[in-house]
Amino acid sequence: MDPDALAKAFVGHYYTTFDTNRPGLANLYQEGSMLTFEGQKIQGSQNIVAKLTSLPFQQCHHAITTVDCQPSGVNAGMLVFVSGNLQLAGEQHALKFSQMFHLIPTPQGSYYVLNDVFRLNYA
Amino acid sequence: MDPDALAKAFVGHYYTTFDTNRPGLANLYQEGSMLTFEGQKIQGSQNIVAKLTSLPFQQCHHAITTVDCQPSGVNAGMLVFVSGNLQLAGEQHALKFSQMFHLIPTPQGSYYVLNDVFRLNYA
Repeated sequence: MDPDALAKAFVGHYYTTFDTNRPGLANLYQEGSMLTFEGQKIQGSQNIVAKLTSLPFQQCHHAITTVDCQPSGVNAGMLVFVSGNLQLAGEQHALKFSQMFHLIPTPQGSYYVLNDVFRLNYA
Repeated sequence: MDPDALAKAFVGHYYTTFDTNRPGLANLYQEGSMLTFEGQKIQGSQNIVAKLTSLPFQQCHHAITTVDCQPSGVNAGMLVFVSGNLQLAGEQHALKFSQMFHLIPTPQGSYYVLNDVFRLNYA
């Protein structure tokens, strides 16, 4: 599978999980994983998912605009850079966001998220 | 120097160089460096700087809004995620942008850019 296709497949899976079964994101992080969410630093799968499931909105939909990917130079890792729109239930306007992931292969042939930085781009 | 201060210092240096002496950015990339600029993939310091110096605007000013950084897990590398506004000379409105850098230490005690992804967030 070529890296761009793989990055798009990961991004599709990530946001579908976020929008439909947020606790399921736990499978995509590990103990060494880091999330910086709007400037707040959080480490470890359990803490990250606790943060993501406690955000002050229940229903949302991520619509992806762009996905860029590059090899990170570490253990066949991939850097994935996403821009898109986040629509919260009951809100008229979508929020623009940017997010980057550093994906590391697992022995099982999938990937986990080592680094994750999320920012809203207040338009 | 703590990583956040270092990331901010790099970002300040990068955009000051971009805005005042774009060819000087060559010193911040190496042969293995990758830039994805609005979806276009470019490799190598020389090609990257050729791209950046041939952009269809001469004068610009980057104003930084946020800088986030995390260790990348490779050779003391750092992931730096930036959001900000790009003001082009003669244009009324600034363009929002997001950019990520993967910085790798050099033997000389500074850093070079291994990965660089730039995207405008059309507001």
